[in-house]
Amino acid sequence: MALRTRLTDFFGIRHPIVLAPMDPAAGGALAAAVSAAGGLGLIGGGYGDREILEAEFAKAGNQRVGCGFITWSMAKSPELLDLALARKPAAMMLSFSDPAPFAEKVHAAGVPLICQVHNLDHARRALDVGASVLVAQGTDAGGHGLTTRGTITLVPSVVDLVARTRPEALVLAAGGIADGRGIAAALMLGADGALLGTRFWATQEALIHPAAKDRVVAATGDETVRTSVYDIVRNRPWPAEYTGRLMRNRFIETWHGREDELRGLAAGEREKVEAADRSGDYDVSNVTVGEAIGLVQDLPPAGELVARLAAETEARLTGVMRAVVV
Amino acid sequence: MALRTRLTDFFGIRHPIVLAPMDPAAGGALAAAVSAAGGLGLIGGGYGDREILEAEFAKAGNQRVGCGFITWSMAKSPELLDLALARKPAAMMLSFSDPAPFAEKVHAAGVPLICQVHNLDHARRALDVGASVLVAQGTDAGGHGLTTRGTITLVPSVVDLVARTRPEALVLAAGGIADGRGIAAALMLGADGALLGTRFWATQEALIHPAAKDRVVAATGDETVRTSVYDIVRNRPWPAEYTGRLMRNRFIETWHGREDELRGLAAGEREKVEAADRSGDYDVSNVTVGEAIGLVQDLPPAGELVARLAAETEARLTGVMRAVVV
Repeated sequence: MALRTRLTDFFGIRHPIVLAPMDPAAGGALAAAVSAAGGLGLIGGGYGDREILEAEFAKAGNQRVGCGFITWSMAKSPELLDLALARKPAAMMLSFSDPAPFAEKVHAAGVPLICQVHNLDHARRALDVGASVLVAQGTDAGGHGLTTRGTITLVPSVVDLVARTRPEALVLAAGGIADGRGIAAALMLGADGALLGTRFWATQEALIHPAAKDRVVAATGDETVRTSVYDIVRNRPWPAEYTGRLMRNRFIETWHGREDELRGLAAGEREKVEAADRSGDYDVSNVTVGEAIGLVQDLPPAGELVARLAAETEARLTGVMRAVVV
Repeated sequence: MALRTRLTDFFGIRHPIVLAPMDPAAGGALAAAVSAAGGLGLIGGGYGDREILEAEFAKAGNQRVGCGFITWSMAKSPELLDLALARKPAAMMLSFSDPAPFAEKVHAAGVPLICQVHNLDHARRALDVGASVLVAQGTDAGGHGLTTRGTITLVPSVVDLVARTRPEALVLAAGGIADGRGIAAALMLGADGALLGTRFWATQEALIHPAAKDRVVAATGDETVRTSVYDIVRNRPWPAEYTGRLMRNRFIETWHGREDELRGLAAGEREKVEAADRSGDYDVSNVTVGEAIGLVQDLPPAGELVARLAAETEARLTGVMRAVVV
């Protein structure tokens, strides 16, 4: 069984399912497992650390995987982009802030450029710089993003813009997609496939503490919130318009809405958060996931999950069409 | 052509398309047009005004339509519910705040109860009070709601809860759905149909000033925001957790974030807003619509729109399944 779209043709993959390059969850083993199962795995280059990036590419072995960066952070050490491009990745994904300063280098390396977009201005910019794929990510998603648009409207709006402007570009839906229902919905909205973060975060291979994964399996989708408190305490200079969606915990309940006070105390609180990282205390450390946690009830190996997602998607597409169209 | 789901069987309608009972857009003429075209029209009972409610039911003539109320406001004049039930509506929809005090009366009248839900607690409550239909409305929607959940994850979460708890209950997806792509996506997510507000707001029959409709046709989906400024200036005592999604305008740019100051000036500002209502000045008065405005490019008659939506939905369901499943 395979699900054919313009995306699977473009990348030569079996299923239109892409792993979000989450930092730190999406290491080489997770990316390789997704690609091996017929999707496309992207290693999370995150804020940019040379040793980690090299180690995770090494863990992906000979599997064809791509990579993604937090653009404004990678821009401080642009040699990281050279390092990643030298690995001949299947794709290079740039998220958060203007991709223009780096697009030519990606094109020159012959690597398909994927740009994450959260509104129509982002989408126009991605088309201007020659992105092959736009990831239309709604505010429903985990991690950083804008509050402007939800997935259900952003995807068809970006699809319409692409159709008017550069119809050969591809669109991935992202934000809140965690099962075959969501992937089938993404295809109905006009996307060529889906990029999944939270669902792959909750797999065996994800580089996440087991205690955090267990929290997510037990949670409902009502338990996330957008906040900047961890960016403040960790001293991450995110552009002001970006907040992160996280699972609610004691730290967020304490500091969300008291950001100025937290700024004054950040060094001391940072030590506590870093200690909590090491000990796996997720009342204090962050669990960076989206509203899709309510659809996550297990922690399968990623390859098994890709096969399940593809089968569920096929069953939804076929079953609903047969039942409804009379 | 017809689209058959559990919803169409339950109500004896041709298409799983329901008009949101928007105040003041969804009057009797709009509700009747939607029902006549094979959907289900619901008159917007809104905050509750006896004369308006009687007049709009009269305008619906002999068409089978339902009605919806803002529950906490209707609770101040519960005789309005009796008045509506005496018209033998096709359904009674209760939104915003606990439906429990009114559910028995609706059941006793033999009228199907529809409850709008914005999170899982709402959904459990709706099931407890015996709702026949749950409207799972994401924050993407226009008008009042919560920020907790987007449509893309709320719908499958509510569907799963219903399947575990009372599988005979029906689920409608709402929030950000404005074309056949969105309705097809709603069905893939597991909904039995879709409830559309913004798309029907932009029709010939909607009781909205033409100048406001023209703004919406020209807008992109990036131009809405959730705010309470109009509730403050109009002195509407909404429960604190509800904000309204509206199209951005000068009034919102001026007052959003300055709510305390606005409270002090509300009487004077209210006069200006009411004058703007009369003159059709939507820099000052409110345009209450959701992110779906980016998918709205015309102002068709509502019956023509229902036929178009049904045809688009069928084309998406059939076309995507044939292209993708190989």
